[in-house]
Amino acid sequence: MSILLDSVEAARMVAQRLAGGPAGVGVLIEVDSDGHRCGVQPDAPELLAVARALAEGGVEVRGVMTHAGASYDCATPAALRAMAEQERAAAVHAAGRLRAAGFACPVVSVGSTPTALAAGHLEGVTELRAGVFVFFDLVMAGIGVCSVDDIALSVLATVIGHQREKGWTLLDAGWMAMSRDRGTASQAVDQGYGLVCDLAGRPLGDWILAGANQEHGIMARRPGAGPEALELQVGQQVRILPNHACSTAAQYGAYQVLGEGDQVTATWPRFSGW
Amino acid sequence: MSILLDSVEAARMVAQRLAGGPAGVGVLIEVDSDGHRCGVQPDAPELLAVARALAEGGVEVRGVMTHAGASYDCATPAALRAMAEQERAAAVHAAGRLRAAGFACPVVSVGSTPTALAAGHLEGVTELRAGVFVFFDLVMAGIGVCSVDDIALSVLATVIGHQREKGWTLLDAGWMAMSRDRGTASQAVDQGYGLVCDLAGRPLGDWILAGANQEHGIMARRPGAGPEALELQVGQQVRILPNHACSTAAQYGAYQVLGEGDQVTATWPRFSGW
Repeated sequence: MSILLDSVEAARMVAQRLAGGPAGVGVLIEVDSDGHRCGVQPDAPELLAVARALAEGGVEVRGVMTHAGASYDCATPAALRAMAEQERAAAVHAAGRLRAAGFACPVVSVGSTPTALAAGHLEGVTELRAGVFVFFDLVMAGIGVCSVDDIALSVLATVIGHQREKGWTLLDAGWMAMSRDRGTASQAVDQGYGLVCDLAGRPLGDWILAGANQEHGIMARRPGAGPEALELQVGQQVRILPNHACSTAAQYGAYQVLGEGDQVTATWPRFSGW
Repeated sequence: MSILLDSVEAARMVAQRLAGGPAGVGVLIEVDSDGHRCGVQPDAPELLAVARALAEGGVEVRGVMTHAGASYDCATPAALRAMAEQERAAAVHAAGRLRAAGFACPVVSVGSTPTALAAGHLEGVTELRAGVFVFFDLVMAGIGVCSVDDIALSVLATVIGHQREKGWTLLDAGWMAMSRDRGTASQAVDQGYGLVCDLAGRPLGDWILAGANQEHGIMARRPGAGPEALELQVGQQVRILPNHACSTAAQYGAYQVLGEGDQVTATWPRFSGW
């Protein structure tokens, strides 16, 4: 088990709470590689102060970790590659400083899905954590990290009605089925609440979940795509690819795993909470 | 059990699927009272056609229902009151037409939380469905349906760090804890991802969850509120009131029910899925 922290204050609290507790709990120090969220600057004096506060409290400094969340805003392969190197270099540099100060620091952990696939090399890194990597999603496709065809998670939905004068096909999947995540809203191609596909997972064209109520999804043409005839019958099913696999999957208690011919071959329960 | 539908096509499909199935399944016809989503117009010939298609298929027309979702965009008590009457009148008018055509139509169902509390009277209505009503939330407070003090659902979060130069206090509750719902973004007071309170549920002032990563929440001053000193220690706990109780609660498997002194007196499992 590892605990993550990034301040002397937190280090002291963790050491205090771990005192007399179970053995073998190590701590990773979070390093800020992109100014995006939190962590100690890799060059800051605080990095060593945190490590010392842990050691003084009898806690093992197991290593460093970082997450280059700013990579989600990258738009080109070159930018992704540069961000991956920035992430790697920050973690390796911080680990080097800790080692020079006498801390073994065996773990050097990096990871975000965009950088995981873009890194030129990962010298000095011992762990790469990438999450959405296992499924991909429309946000990742929008960054150029994968193609839409690579996305391995979808929501099965059923046509429940039409508002034909508005060009709407109503589905039984609203934001409670997809999550409220609109991660593609800030990308070049806005996929609404999801991209509508046939049962084999092939996009129907410029048909997206243009709007979502709690339990109703509004399937319509992508803005600017122009009209196109597509009449789905009530009861017909579609698959919707999500903006963000993490948030969509969190709406469910389990995954239905499909084999050949779309048969459910396994059910994987999810872990929720954090 | 009742099934909801709003087209002849759906009526035929439902009748076909129910044929030979369990007895006692009635159908409610959805009426569009505000042009917001779906349903048959209360004056449309289709209303009677749907009822006839059901009856021909041997299915009981149990009644009508509507949901005035447009009430979420109301901003004054007068507008809410008018919307509640519009919702009631649409449902009652549709039921009257069905009864005149020979359908008993025992159920006349209306409901949305904003109109539930604003209706001048509910003559002719047999059921009022209001959901978020049981907890309230910041969106409802923004509409003026309740006060912030009425909100009965909160997320307990812990301070995990600071970015002092940015004015950030980092919490262990990001959008996975709060949901991605930003329902107050379009209201007069934008509450970010939630309003931060002390453990007794009293707002700390203009402190909101100004940003949210997947597991990290960024507590900061409301834009335009100006600086204010408030130093929370790592490990200290706060409560966050949600934009939308439905979407926040859906992130959890159960409710922790608090009694006097914030003791958990019961755990209520949630039903998920739809």
